[in-house]
Amino acid sequence: MLAYVNPQSWALTLSTGVAHYWSRSRGKLWKKGEQSGNLQEVREIRVDCDLDSVLLKVHQVGEAACHTGYRSCFHRRLEGDGLVTDGVRVFEPERIYGSGR
Amino acid sequence: MLAYVNPQSWALTLSTGVAHYWSRSRGKLWKKGEQSGNLQEVREIRVDCDLDSVLLKVHQVGEAACHTGYRSCFHRRLEGDGLVTDGVRVFEPERIYGSGR
Repeated sequence: MLAYVNPQSWALTLSTGVAHYWSRSRGKLWKKGEQSGNLQEVREIRVDCDLDSVLLKVHQVGEAACHTGYRSCFHRRLEGDGLVTDGVRVFEPERIYGSGR
Repeated sequence: MLAYVNPQSWALTLSTGVAHYWSRSRGKLWKKGEQSGNLQEVREIRVDCDLDSVLLKVHQVGEAACHTGYRSCFHRRLEGDGLVTDGVRVFEPERIYGSGR
């Protein structure tokens, strides 16, 4: 998954050991898995050459990072003009988030 | 590596099969490896759940993606308050880009 980190979420990730992001769509701090329980326990933090992006290696609680229930947000590949879903689906999102999502 | 893609670089990536990005710092189209020769031959393109980021699986010509000469831009990990370089260095950047960089 790819997400935005701001100073507040970065500090919380470091102090708690579980991944926090900043939700730009909701305009609020986002503790990953706060609703689904699928927390991300940080195992390693890597930084890129110009220090403007970080790579978190995590233990993904619940085995799914994506709110759609797939292990990865990148569960579709481009093939011709279409998308083929070849990711692993771990849960049904309706059971976690309700039908309103 | 993480980079920005705009519609022009996306179209060129699809039509040529080698990765193109948009350099926000330079304000111009960026054919990856145009100077170093380290092109990225696209093997697979994956899209994320909300269709605002793409994951390119590539054959990295020259074995290094990073302009610092490392295989990965994420060649350093956080340890305590410091950074530890544990990536694989493939080339000396001075030999590729000259000393002005």
